[in-house]
Amino acid sequence: MHRDGSAAKVFSRDDVRVVLCAPRNPLNIGAAARAMANFGFTRMRVVNPYEVAYREARSAVGAAPLLASAAEFKELGAAVADCALVVGTTSVGHRELQHPLRRLEYGARLIRKAAGPIALLFGSEKFGLSNEEMSHCHWLMRIPTVDLDRSMNLGQAVAVCLYELARDARTATRVGREAAPPKPASAADTEQITQMLVEALERSGYIKPLTAASTKMKTRRLVRRLNLTARDAPVVLGMLRQILWGLNAG
Amino acid sequence: MHRDGSAAKVFSRDDVRVVLCAPRNPLNIGAAARAMANFGFTRMRVVNPYEVAYREARSAVGAAPLLASAAEFKELGAAVADCALVVGTTSVGHRELQHPLRRLEYGARLIRKAAGPIALLFGSEKFGLSNEEMSHCHWLMRIPTVDLDRSMNLGQAVAVCLYELARDARTATRVGREAAPPKPASAADTEQITQMLVEALERSGYIKPLTAASTKMKTRRLVRRLNLTARDAPVVLGMLRQILWGLNAG
Repeated sequence: MHRDGSAAKVFSRDDVRVVLCAPRNPLNIGAAARAMANFGFTRMRVVNPYEVAYREARSAVGAAPLLASAAEFKELGAAVADCALVVGTTSVGHRELQHPLRRLEYGARLIRKAAGPIALLFGSEKFGLSNEEMSHCHWLMRIPTVDLDRSMNLGQAVAVCLYELARDARTATRVGREAAPPKPASAADTEQITQMLVEALERSGYIKPLTAASTKMKTRRLVRRLNLTARDAPVVLGMLRQILWGLNAG
Repeated sequence: MHRDGSAAKVFSRDDVRVVLCAPRNPLNIGAAARAMANFGFTRMRVVNPYEVAYREARSAVGAAPLLASAAEFKELGAAVADCALVVGTTSVGHRELQHPLRRLEYGARLIRKAAGPIALLFGSEKFGLSNEEMSHCHWLMRIPTVDLDRSMNLGQAVAVCLYELARDARTATRVGREAAPPKPASAADTEQITQMLVEALERSGYIKPLTAASTKMKTRRLVRRLNLTARDAPVVLGMLRQILWGLNAG
């Protein structure tokens, strides 16, 4: 945990416990688990769920395996007992601020820097986190929605929060295969395409004798604006060749 | 739009059309609308939805008002016809990359810089975007999930994408002085160019009956890679019209 400050803390998604407080809808429980799987989080805790919903979510076809290993608690206190940091989430404007309220972007940064197990709390679908539940939190994190009176769907709130948490952890390691910019077509190919296009335009009567020189230059500039890639150039050449053949046949 | 370069383009959430392709589940349609309301987006388009689901989603208690004003289309081409940029979303690893694939963070930045109406496409719950649907896209944006085999829930994918798009719009007010990029061709013009090119390729014998469907999709993607500008589109249309005339005369 590097409490000595000798080395920087490295954020691990395994440090995060996603805690669902009193969820009532099996679809939302399943959606939360799915978002966790999508963004690489594994530890779910469920506090005082509506039992029927919880059973249904766990037995659903295609349920994320992490749901089967979720831990169930009767009380929030027990669910977060081993955590060094407890953060509540909200998307609605708050009646009375008893807690520091941080925007998701900033809160996520603080969480990534935190040491030890971290609990991330999501309230019930209908009411969000209760005052009692909030009282277990060190601070609150707000998802920056525009509509302060409208809460977010639970599964979507989990998805957005975990996306933001995973965001930088990943950009650092770059799992994504960012496509390298494609190789541009050679000048020779570009010019050959220009010549063939000009020929097609001459044969079809687009280029008029009087303005031929200027139309050819315009065509040359146009072809260059297309920014053809090395991969596309032979395809375009093949197309033009065939079109020229068709125009000849006429 | 400040096309004269006197001022930088300012991203507005009203420029974005959230396009749901063939959604089948009313809860997902409702969740997508809710995420839009949460993050301040207003324009939804729905292409070829499962009618029962669409009706149910619209009549659900607490449905977002923007769902009532959503536009319905039979074909994706029509749904994106007025858009200057068409971006498909995906969260799964791709079989074959026919399109530039950009990570959400980077893609969102490009979208915020784009001029004119932007379509953001979400595929059906089961299969995501089809190859045919993807062929309408300029590029694809990948939500950086860890589990490449597991797709995201539709409502959650919409929430995460719109959160990322809304993100900087709010933090960065950008006082840019760079010249505005040229206005891109509309999707309608781009599609008309595609259709005329396909016709020319058919008449000249480039397109063979057995591989016609795949060649047409390849051609559609190729045309989108050209990044035609609004100024060049009518020129290219004029050229193709004349070439078609020449091929007819034969």
